[in-house]
Amino acid sequence: MTFTLGIEFKLHVFGESHGECIGVVIEGCPPGLLVDINQIQQDLDKRKPGGSPLVSARSERDKLRILSGIFEERATGGPITLSIENLDVDSSSYAKTRYIPRPGHADFTAAIKYKEFNDHRGSGFFSGRMTAAFVMAGGVAKQLLNNHGIKVFVHVIQIGTTKTKKKITVHDIEENVYENVVRSADIGTISSMESEIVKAKEDGDSVGGIVECRITGIPVGLGEPIFDSVESVLSHSMFSIPGVKGIEFGSGFAGSRRRGSENNDSPIIVDGKIEWSKNDAGGILGGITNGAPVIFRIAFKPTATISKKQSTVDLRKMQETTIEAKGRHDPCIVPRAVPVVEALAAITIVDLLMRNTFISHKGNGGSRSAR
Amino acid sequence: MTFTLGIEFKLHVFGESHGECIGVVIEGCPPGLLVDINQIQQDLDKRKPGGSPLVSARSERDKLRILSGIFEERATGGPITLSIENLDVDSSSYAKTRYIPRPGHADFTAAIKYKEFNDHRGSGFFSGRMTAAFVMAGGVAKQLLNNHGIKVFVHVIQIGTTKTKKKITVHDIEENVYENVVRSADIGTISSMESEIVKAKEDGDSVGGIVECRITGIPVGLGEPIFDSVESVLSHSMFSIPGVKGIEFGSGFAGSRRRGSENNDSPIIVDGKIEWSKNDAGGILGGITNGAPVIFRIAFKPTATISKKQSTVDLRKMQETTIEAKGRHDPCIVPRAVPVVEALAAITIVDLLMRNTFISHKGNGGSRSAR
Amino acid sequence: MTFTLGIEFKLHVFGESHGECIGVVIEGCPPGLLVDINQIQQDLDKRKPGGSPLVSARSERDKLRILSGIFEERATGGPITLSIENLDVDSSSYAKTRYIPRPGHADFTAAIKYKEFNDHRGSGFFSGRMTAAFVMAGGVAKQLLNNHGIKVFVHVIQIGTTKTKKKITVHDIEENVYENVVRSADIGTISSMESEIVKAKEDGDSVGGIVECRITGIPVGLGEPIFDSVESVLSHSMFSIPGVKGIEFGSGFAGSRRRGSENNDSPIIVDGKIEWSKNDAGGILGGITNGAPVIFRIAFKPTATISKKQSTVDLRKMQETTIEAKGRHDPCIVPRAVPVVEALAAITIVDLLMRNTFISHKGNGGSRSAR
Amino acid sequence: MTFTLGIEFKLHVFGESHGECIGVVIEGCPPGLLVDINQIQQDLDKRKPGGSPLVSARSERDKLRILSGIFEERATGGPITLSIENLDVDSSSYAKTRYIPRPGHADFTAAIKYKEFNDHRGSGFFSGRMTAAFVMAGGVAKQLLNNHGIKVFVHVIQIGTTKTKKKITVHDIEENVYENVVRSADIGTISSMESEIVKAKEDGDSVGGIVECRITGIPVGLGEPIFDSVESVLSHSMFSIPGVKGIEFGSGFAGSRRRGSENNDSPIIVDGKIEWSKNDAGGILGGITNGAPVIFRIAFKPTATISKKQSTVDLRKMQETTIEAKGRHDPCIVPRAVPVVEALAAITIVDLLMRNTFISHKGNGGSRSAR
Repeated sequence: MTFTLGIEFKLHVFGESHGECIGVVIEGCPPGLLVDINQIQQDLDKRKPGGSPLVSARSERDKLRILSGIFEERATGGPITLSIENLDVDSSSYAKTRYIPRPGHADFTAAIKYKEFNDHRGSGFFSGRMTAAFVMAGGVAKQLLNNHGIKVFVHVIQIGTTKTKKKITVHDIEENVYENVVRSADIGTISSMESEIVKAKEDGDSVGGIVECRITGIPVGLGEPIFDSVESVLSHSMFSIPGVKGIEFGSGFAGSRRRGSENNDSPIIVDGKIEWSKNDAGGILGGITNGAPVIFRIAFKPTATISKKQSTVDLRKMQETTIEAKGRHDPCIVPRAVPVVEALAAITIVDLLMRNTFISHKGNGGSRSAR
Repeated sequence: MTFTLGIEFKLHVFGESHGECIGVVIEGCPPGLLVDINQIQQDLDKRKPGGSPLVSARSERDKLRILSGIFEERATGGPITLSIENLDVDSSSYAKTRYIPRPGHADFTAAIKYKEFNDHRGSGFFSGRMTAAFVMAGGVAKQLLNNHGIKVFVHVIQIGTTKTKKKITVHDIEENVYENVVRSADIGTISSMESEIVKAKEDGDSVGGIVECRITGIPVGLGEPIFDSVESVLSHSMFSIPGVKGIEFGSGFAGSRRRGSENNDSPIIVDGKIEWSKNDAGGILGGITNGAPVIFRIAFKPTATISKKQSTVDLRKMQETTIEAKGRHDPCIVPRAVPVVEALAAITIVDLLMRNTFISHKGNGGSRSAR
Repeated sequence: MTFTLGIEFKLHVFGESHGECIGVVIEGCPPGLLVDINQIQQDLDKRKPGGSPLVSARSERDKLRILSGIFEERATGGPITLSIENLDVDSSSYAKTRYIPRPGHADFTAAIKYKEFNDHRGSGFFSGRMTAAFVMAGGVAKQLLNNHGIKVFVHVIQIGTTKTKKKITVHDIEENVYENVVRSADIGTISSMESEIVKAKEDGDSVGGIVECRITGIPVGLGEPIFDSVESVLSHSMFSIPGVKGIEFGSGFAGSRRRGSENNDSPIIVDGKIEWSKNDAGGILGGITNGAPVIFRIAFKPTATISKKQSTVDLRKMQETTIEAKGRHDPCIVPRAVPVVEALAAITIVDLLMRNTFISHKGNGGSRSAR
Repeated sequence: MTFTLGIEFKLHVFGESHGECIGVVIEGCPPGLLVDINQIQQDLDKRKPGGSPLVSARSERDKLRILSGIFEERATGGPITLSIENLDVDSSSYAKTRYIPRPGHADFTAAIKYKEFNDHRGSGFFSGRMTAAFVMAGGVAKQLLNNHGIKVFVHVIQIGTTKTKKKITVHDIEENVYENVVRSADIGTISSMESEIVKAKEDGDSVGGIVECRITGIPVGLGEPIFDSVESVLSHSMFSIPGVKGIEFGSGFAGSRRRGSENNDSPIIVDGKIEWSKNDAGGILGGITNGAPVIFRIAFKPTATISKKQSTVDLRKMQETTIEAKGRHDPCIVPRAVPVVEALAAITIVDLLMRNTFISHKGNGGSRSAR
């Protein structure tokens, strides 16, 4: 796997930032799924550049094209191929970075690993634009999850040093996130988050941040021991997003400072069903979902590309030099990452859901869901 | 993949805590590797229970057995199968947890996912004892890495609320970690870490902690875009260790609060070779190693099993009850996790190393290493 | 995959002919399957050497050992590990073949591919003894199939130039195959098949033959387009048996000489259900089962190892020489292959059955069997 | 795997016969490969319908489009995506076959497995047109093989009951195959093969045939024991071609009637190198290439779709009926299969070649080719 993700519900992504298109082949979608193309287009629009002063000036329509797998509006059972074209391509600023890597950027490793053959324009397949492929596939995954009553909620909880203050409900996320440019569910912190980004931009600099994801309606029993715990597969997916450098589930790093009596969640019985006293486990015990919402947070480093002067090297001449990056870049990618995290979380949960079903040992020809 | 890890260098683990044995089949080891069995036995001994008052009282010899794949002391190219027997088995305390899950533990999810068929004794294949399989396979992986000049250093940097204070060098790790029971490289913090564990134990409670891993001598170019970044595959591996709830690479969560100009590392030229001004990237750019040491930290939650009374449910009667866990458990698994993290890191890096080699496009029949 | 077969129901085989043991790890067995160990032991006994003058004189008890995955007689959902020990090991005759390959044998390719590291004793992992691992795993698979009403029937239809004459029913196979040493379902051809083998043995030579497999009770819809057709996956499995050099489904090579109007099978309606006018398709249309029995035949070459003098080369001296093979070999492996074909067919069908089940697109949490 | 083939050099095919396009994503092509697009277009042209009275009247330009992975005429190391559009689409004749399956055709199994969601037009992804995707990917594979001195030769050796008579050399294949419409290398049999097809067509019927493939220049050591023998992976690939019902390697079915002393090939020394006395093994011993050309033959059943009246069933009404198939079909697909077999053989050998390379156990950072 490299351009492929998933075991049962599989993605194969292709394309480059300044090539013909960005696309994805989805294998494993059950035949008969009604695929709402408008819904997927809306998800793409949420990720699209050019929408606010806080993001890249690149202007792309990102119009969804269906290349295969959908017939009479439904999944056929064959591979679903979706793509968007690259239209607003300006490769002029990249001639330089081909040999003079931007600090903190994949320029260096791409040039070594793929030599002169790497399509360096717009960072080729190392571009953040590749995440549009995740969003397209995530659109299909979300429609599957929806049919199973599972929902994914994502919001920004930190931009630079500004954090959300109030306790956020899923209702807050649903109502507020896509109503503001920083994708915060806490209305009170929007303006200070926005100003962190604006100030960084004015300084020719960038900022990082933290995104939180909550997945509700999830059945007990998803996740596979030993090596495909929910944490393993979700983290594997999330670190595929450029700029992610950390992830924690439930109480995470804070929990490592606690005692067991404080950190353990107790099962309780509510209306004859098992629920949990609290959710420090992030909905996962022994790598397997326990029925509580799956909760994780991911840390994004500040965007590597900045216009401030930085020291670097010229790989041809093998001498030190400086660079002031040009091109159209986001001073903070965290808000645009929100629909991407949502998509990858949905894709990963669908895969776990499909892996959790197997034929009965009793010969009834059916399947056995964990609950 | 569930009991299988890796693409080129693959592990298939098997066994249960109170079954016949714990074992691992390793596929993909190059023929000819000299396998030093004593070295692997020493690694197993470092993970073994029964060695100090801080760990489980279970007493196991954990004597390594070779079932296949080694001939005249070298790898044959076939699957290498290694195992240890389970000898000191006492399943008496587990009859209860079969239906009365310990809070924070896999008891609950295992009972739902695998129903009454789960081998609940000693937590079956959810047991931390399964990590002995990682250590055995890691022993083989480390011998391969050693031949490539790559080394893995792991140490405990936090137990409960006690952190290491001084800046740790790899020399400190090499010298100190296995000389003290808490696996700290900072001699000054050993006693307070130890007392955190002892106090928790006295209280019938447990503590968590943080482990850091550094991998040196790593070539530029390991890691596969898009979905098998170094971060993706290492986190996938690390979350296979029971109790891990967070991971961060380089500056990680702290980096998310910074600006790009501060967080970016600049390449510099030292003696005609590229090095790095600092290492906030944790040795990884665009998901691919940049030649600097790979650095990550993982957060362990406090051990779920404690002898303090906790509320839980009886799954048969579907009513609330309490539990005071018996059995032989570690008040803190963090020190014993050190050789496990070391093993899994080695296994994962070997896999990336083997994936990085491909036939030439020019027909010389050879391979192309990234550098 | 190399020592691994299957996608959902997976085998990982290990061991060598003269090493410690031969074993298999089975991943994907549904928890709760009642595993009848005696049944598997009986299957092993059918494959065992030493049973008749027609087969190798090696005498092995082949006593089944369970290393993991079975608890209270049922599958736990974890990996099932089964093994047999190698007891009657005599490696003396192999010192020679390490450098002087037997014509027609893997000696040559093993020595080149694995160099001096290959465990050449008894042909190491190239030994036919590895097929005992298939039989062990097949025993588990057959118990699963049995619960789904699927049965596998295998019989020898040709030894050397002697073919079965009468039309064979599955009843003939069930009644006769394991009642005679050549594994023929046609009682009238047993003695001439037997004499083909005896004569070859007397001449220090060997013979080949053909085995037919029929799988009944199979549902419509197994097999995955495009690359995992039933023919693709069954042939992939069957060519894993040493000595297999050809396979054909339904009318096979004979069908290639026909016209479509003759070769096509027509669906008919019998008691309100679809059946087929005849079965030249071998139960497979478009790579997918059509409900008729799956039928295929596989061609075995004559055993490579013979005691007659043959010309070969000495790989160390790089000069031509001759060899008269010693050791305990079968003059015809075809009869002993019968339980092996049965096992691999069962394993492959179980895998296809498990792959055919997926979550509903409608959210009912269940699965969708093809019929 | 279903729409995916390969381990290191991977294909993901997509599209439908009457959908937007047919395409393929290729993962694993080494960066730097010079990709000659004209060469691939020529291969596509050899498979294209509409070229002779013997083949389907569907007229498609099959103009190759590059969607990703090629930059400055060379492979980038990212996924290479190639496609052709479907232009001459006429779905009118398929409304009927949606519920009234053609005997011998995937119509029936597709309708059961994928229910009403199957894109039945032109047989959707069950169409022979999908093999254009193999040809596109094969074009890339052949350029890689070419750089390694490996060549693939394919020719028709039987159409219906007409077989080639003379002993064919690779020179004959190279010179003659694409110079005649039946793809025979034996000029003397062209006209009788052609007349078999013409007569079948006149009768509203179809014929089958046999194709032979020879792969030269192949190194010793390709193929992976136990489950990925050269025979296993090549047969897996070949049965992905619609209509293939049998395969044999070397002496194949004929060899099963022989004695070992006759069938075994002896190694000999020619100019200080090992060659083989003859090639009944088809270049494969113990599942691994022995340096002799890999040789196999595949049997194609007669085309299922014929215009003669045949009995079948109406799946909606569940009653028997008859069908006289309309539409544009090949009376014999065997000649058009030649470039498809060539492509899949090339793809499979490249994959084996890439799998045969691994890092040294000695730490030289390089690879170890088997020879």
